[in-house]
Amino acid sequence: MNNLKVINNELYLGKYRLSDIGKEYGTPTYIFDEDDLDQKMKFYQNTFKSNLFDTKVVYASKAFLVPEVCKLLSKNGLYMDAMSITDMEIAKYAGFNLEHIVFHGNNKSNKELKYAVENNIGYIVVDNLDELERLIEISKNAKRCVNTLFRINPLVDAHTHAYIQTALNASKFGESIEDSKTIDNIINTYKKTNNVKLLGFHAHIGSQIKEVGPFMLLVEKMVKFTKEINDLYSLSLDTINLGGGFGIEYYSGDEKVNLKEMLTFVIKKLEEEIKKNEIKINNVMIEPGRSIVGPACLTLYECGITKKTIGGKNFLFIDGGMTDNIRPALYEAKYEAVVVNKVASNQKIVVDVVGKCCESGDFIIKDALLPVAKPGDYLAVFQTGAYNYSMHVEYNGHLRPQVLFVGDDIKIVSKKQTIENILELFK
Amino acid sequence: MNNLKVINNELYLGKYRLSDIGKEYGTPTYIFDEDDLDQKMKFYQNTFKSNLFDTKVVYASKAFLVPEVCKLLSKNGLYMDAMSITDMEIAKYAGFNLEHIVFHGNNKSNKELKYAVENNIGYIVVDNLDELERLIEISKNAKRCVNTLFRINPLVDAHTHAYIQTALNASKFGESIEDSKTIDNIINTYKKTNNVKLLGFHAHIGSQIKEVGPFMLLVEKMVKFTKEINDLYSLSLDTINLGGGFGIEYYSGDEKVNLKEMLTFVIKKLEEEIKKNEIKINNVMIEPGRSIVGPACLTLYECGITKKTIGGKNFLFIDGGMTDNIRPALYEAKYEAVVVNKVASNQKIVVDVVGKCCESGDFIIKDALLPVAKPGDYLAVFQTGAYNYSMHVEYNGHLRPQVLFVGDDIKIVSKKQTIENILELFK
Repeated sequence: MNNLKVINNELYLGKYRLSDIGKEYGTPTYIFDEDDLDQKMKFYQNTFKSNLFDTKVVYASKAFLVPEVCKLLSKNGLYMDAMSITDMEIAKYAGFNLEHIVFHGNNKSNKELKYAVENNIGYIVVDNLDELERLIEISKNAKRCVNTLFRINPLVDAHTHAYIQTALNASKFGESIEDSKTIDNIINTYKKTNNVKLLGFHAHIGSQIKEVGPFMLLVEKMVKFTKEINDLYSLSLDTINLGGGFGIEYYSGDEKVNLKEMLTFVIKKLEEEIKKNEIKINNVMIEPGRSIVGPACLTLYECGITKKTIGGKNFLFIDGGMTDNIRPALYEAKYEAVVVNKVASNQKIVVDVVGKCCESGDFIIKDALLPVAKPGDYLAVFQTGAYNYSMHVEYNGHLRPQVLFVGDDIKIVSKKQTIENILELFK
Repeated sequence: MNNLKVINNELYLGKYRLSDIGKEYGTPTYIFDEDDLDQKMKFYQNTFKSNLFDTKVVYASKAFLVPEVCKLLSKNGLYMDAMSITDMEIAKYAGFNLEHIVFHGNNKSNKELKYAVENNIGYIVVDNLDELERLIEISKNAKRCVNTLFRINPLVDAHTHAYIQTALNASKFGESIEDSKTIDNIINTYKKTNNVKLLGFHAHIGSQIKEVGPFMLLVEKMVKFTKEINDLYSLSLDTINLGGGFGIEYYSGDEKVNLKEMLTFVIKKLEEEIKKNEIKINNVMIEPGRSIVGPACLTLYECGITKKTIGGKNFLFIDGGMTDNIRPALYEAKYEAVVVNKVASNQKIVVDVVGKCCESGDFIIKDALLPVAKPGDYLAVFQTGAYNYSMHVEYNGHLRPQVLFVGDDIKIVSKKQTIENILELFK
């Protein structure tokens, strides 16, 4: 967050004291630094650029989606991806240009494909032959022509250090570049239709990638594969979508990431490989999600007591937990926090920050060194912009927390869920 | 599920063919055998009984809560627990007697305590001294008298085979029975008030317990502890709440559980210990959740394609996944499934049953041996009544699936969430 500062032991976001926001708006609350979001979008637009080809930064909306995000994307010229009709309806509600949407999914239903065709969704990323055949049928019936990418599995292991090709031939997404028979079927199916146009290929190699190595290998493979397919089938595919996966630092001591360097290297590598392979690539897309929204948000909680157990373990109770941030339970994710009204306090203890759920897995941070918090103090947990709100669990009757965008003023961009909202399902 | 049967290779629930339910109601859908639920409630009421003391079966609603469940509980004389105002509002909406609610939580807010006091919630399980002091204040102000249990940590390890006392002194719930200083503070605080009455103690030792051993040790400790406190402080506490944790079998080959034997042994052990300790115990509560609702439900999905990867792995795509059942991703939970319209088919393959989310963790079963499914076939996953609907994740725009109760007729007891329901938060 760009605009955090400490004044008199109190944490501020811009001109707002966070403990005041807690008092006025209640907790738990996701609080975004709107300027940070805006700057990060601009950074991507300005950094991922080339003179050789057009670029599109496609925001991976599964990280965090509310209409106000769509508006910021529009303003800054970013595209967005979608995984469901819900996502596309949220974009539509926000007035987002649906031609700037890339629609993903390994198992799209006919209903979803029909929706995408009828609403002129910009790009459909086709996952498999069955889906392609259904899409052709649907497009024909609708008398529409749709632009697609086809998802391939490029066999790049994002978790090895670099340039190591592995046999990750067990992914549910797309088709392997080594499966020439399946690829042949797919290309020939595309060739027989005028309704569904293949622009190029899409791949996504993983999440939280902090080294450029896997992306270098990906670029190499994607350009080469596109060239081979063009040559083999007399095509002129000119679009490459590299997916996302750019990592962020969740806590001090977390492995560093130099996003600017990564993006610059990717562009350079693209230019090199395009020249080397003598291919015309006009469009390159990337799909960052976490790296745009993750660092722009903190979650504010109100503290309860600190329970000191006879076994020596201390538990700091907060008024949220796994229901608003399931990542520690689900991925053993680590976070960092401060007591916002005691930022610089030296009287510290080691505590497990735990939530209200009747479940031992309901923790946010284990063994955090924090100032001694009193009931009524506020705790901020950082880097919670991605996969927190979007993975909310309504468990134990915990209502979905509100989301605030803080800038010159404070906007509620998603209201706190109401009990009435839940009861509606029973009426 | 009591009323499953196979006719001509098709799975039926009572008189309804499951593939017909899929066609008529859509998928994914949670489908409960209403008779199974009803019978399981009756079983608990009839089995957990003694001539020495009254018993109360308190349904742990965090496993699955919709108004129709409250109605079944009422009808069968069960109590229910609640973790939040949401839970209590759902009960209220269903016309459930709020005096039959046991309110839990390690970090109850003043708002929640006030709600419980003002709504005459039957029992509040107090977690710690701070909460007790706040509850006293709130009850005084409201001029009410409330019944409470105090949650203790009995230091029973539910995961060892039996009768082994461990130093599990690191739980966020309650206070350790070995922490005599804290217990002393608590009892003395209770003694100074007339507004908050202590009836006895509550403990909960874990989940998915399949052996009676840990419960035997729990009974021993709870009776002994109550006796000691009565003697030490001249009290006549006469209530014991043993919590829940009774396990179920999730798949063939899962460790067996004999629930009837467990409950009978617990009753016998209670009677013995009560006699041995020469104490008058008038009320004993247990809190089963999973064992009531878990086996009464299946989730019905529509199948997509089976993707055969070049690496040899097969993926069966379904139209739900981790968003409606996060337990495989969260707890590595195992499930079993059948293709409902090909139950007895001999042409089988090994597949990973995977969902629609853009996430590798989105699987329901790994390496399932299943009949070869075609798109449009329906898959039933069993034992999904507990911690599926209640832990729904709205990730990737996946709407909360509907819930059906199937008996003489089919009732929609929770409607499928609508996009409108989500958009409401943005208005």
